[in-house]
Amino acid sequence: MNEIPHLTVDLDAPGVSRGHLVVPGGADRGELSLPVFSLNKGEGPRLLVTGGNHGNELEGPLVARRLVEWLPVAQTCGRIIVLPVLNPLAVEAWSRNTPLDGLNLNRVFPGRAGGSVTERIADAVSRVLLPVADTVFDLHSFGPKWDFPPAATTHPIADPDLMARTVRMAQAFKLPLTLVWDYNDTAGMFDIVAQNQGKVFVCTEFGGGTVGADNLAIYEAGVRNAFIALGLVEGKAEYPTFRQRKSSQTLETHPYDELKSPATGIFEPRCSVLDEVKQGDLMGILHPMDSLSAESIDIRANGTSIVVAIRSGAHVHANQGVALVARPLKN
Amino acid sequence: MNEIPHLTVDLDAPGVSRGHLVVPGGADRGELSLPVFSLNKGEGPRLLVTGGNHGNELEGPLVARRLVEWLPVAQTCGRIIVLPVLNPLAVEAWSRNTPLDGLNLNRVFPGRAGGSVTERIADAVSRVLLPVADTVFDLHSFGPKWDFPPAATTHPIADPDLMARTVRMAQAFKLPLTLVWDYNDTAGMFDIVAQNQGKVFVCTEFGGGTVGADNLAIYEAGVRNAFIALGLVEGKAEYPTFRQRKSSQTLETHPYDELKSPATGIFEPRCSVLDEVKQGDLMGILHPMDSLSAESIDIRANGTSIVVAIRSGAHVHANQGVALVARPLKN
Repeated sequence: MNEIPHLTVDLDAPGVSRGHLVVPGGADRGELSLPVFSLNKGEGPRLLVTGGNHGNELEGPLVARRLVEWLPVAQTCGRIIVLPVLNPLAVEAWSRNTPLDGLNLNRVFPGRAGGSVTERIADAVSRVLLPVADTVFDLHSFGPKWDFPPAATTHPIADPDLMARTVRMAQAFKLPLTLVWDYNDTAGMFDIVAQNQGKVFVCTEFGGGTVGADNLAIYEAGVRNAFIALGLVEGKAEYPTFRQRKSSQTLETHPYDELKSPATGIFEPRCSVLDEVKQGDLMGILHPMDSLSAESIDIRANGTSIVVAIRSGAHVHANQGVALVARPLKN
Repeated sequence: MNEIPHLTVDLDAPGVSRGHLVVPGGADRGELSLPVFSLNKGEGPRLLVTGGNHGNELEGPLVARRLVEWLPVAQTCGRIIVLPVLNPLAVEAWSRNTPLDGLNLNRVFPGRAGGSVTERIADAVSRVLLPVADTVFDLHSFGPKWDFPPAATTHPIADPDLMARTVRMAQAFKLPLTLVWDYNDTAGMFDIVAQNQGKVFVCTEFGGGTVGADNLAIYEAGVRNAFIALGLVEGKAEYPTFRQRKSSQTLETHPYDELKSPATGIFEPRCSVLDEVKQGDLMGILHPMDSLSAESIDIRANGTSIVVAIRSGAHVHANQGVALVARPLKN
């Protein structure tokens, strides 16, 4: 097939347009049409909002659907493109990766025109949507196996100016956590491709397996705050209430901040996200499964830090991550 | 193989015993040894506590592990047997059913000695453990795809005396919800086999995908309350705090109380568990996935009721259940 990825909407048309991003077919399946919303109010910031990068993280698509409802009356300037579901094949299967080719969409950017379906989605987004945006919000969640607070995150960026602008943008969500996440496995991420083109890219995260009404409201409030900060909509930014608190903190975490399971068994979390822990505090317990005489193993904090992710109680293997801690960002 | 299911512990020995329930091997795999804890303090109630009936419901095994820690100093009379993980194969795979034979353990009771591994587990429990208990607590959760409040549940029971005793036992957990659940798909459930033998059987449930420290504390407090009511341990039963409230209500639900999705798409929950809803209240929205021009469909309450289960935001098929409501139990 010689088709190239394209939009069925004219982004330069004033006002609201609804259509699709067409991802060409390939050897593995026919073309995909990803629903797209565009609202052009002329001069101003150019923002791309995406959700459903991973198929078992549904807060993003739902918040994106909500934006599509209220943006037509709220947006005052600039251009916003909303693509609620980047990977419909993964969303239909409630799986992180695409079932058809087994690939993680967020590790194959910028994609490949002649590749498998996941690579073709990344290619279409990289070639058609990324060039028309200066800022990107990719709405993720932490998925069903962890708890994680509502957060706006970025990885460290080599360019100090882009780094500073990205952190300020992330803080503008006013979510409980702004996190600079130093992470080893970043090759092929959407973030990296966008940042290499000098764009501000913020990845929002929201943990816990249950996508509930209360959580969606917090997530949506954060995105609205960021729109206000960009000047795209009017209003007053407010901290959403999370666990009876209205607050925000900016932290950093590194690969050595991940606590790993000392053995195979059932992991019992003994702390909650945003708890402050000190050296020696109990964070979780690993229960071996084969005997009730075998000792359960305490997993304790290595130093003063704040819990940003804790694994859901479940069977884990030795050396699998069970918690992630962080500390205040050094400027 | 001619082996029969058996225990490696002597339940008549006084005090604590730790060992295994041996499930014989069969054509599909060798024998399984399920860790068992027994505490015999002489005369008094005979209680069996089980967890891990379904492999993606880990609150039960974790609460069971906690009981094993404090029962030796707390139990004052009677006999308690704790089997934290009924189905280790499903727990290792974080799946509801057993991967090896695809069976749901809670639909194959009383099991079959010559059957596949799931049937052999049910057979071992039915033949070895059930006869030595008068009361059974099977610790479930609602799994990762729903939200559900901490609850003690039963199905309707034909014998009015056993029904009354079972509801009283369920209420003794003092969890936010005691639910009498009229349900069509009950063939092969552990409950039914136990109730047919005149035993009080309470199934605890706890929803939400994330097995967290706060939730485990509520669940454990409920089980401790039930132990106090049985006279097995001393102490004062207290309502655990759930969403800033200390309260409890007894409700009933029927097959017609399930709300189903009107179409295929992404379900957005718009209410929370234990919310009271009135006729016409918005409970959720079904968003079609193929277009942003297609209308999203509101899902509204049919009458005054209390939300007991709400599906997590995710892709659903037409006619799939998305919410369950209930009303105060009629005596």
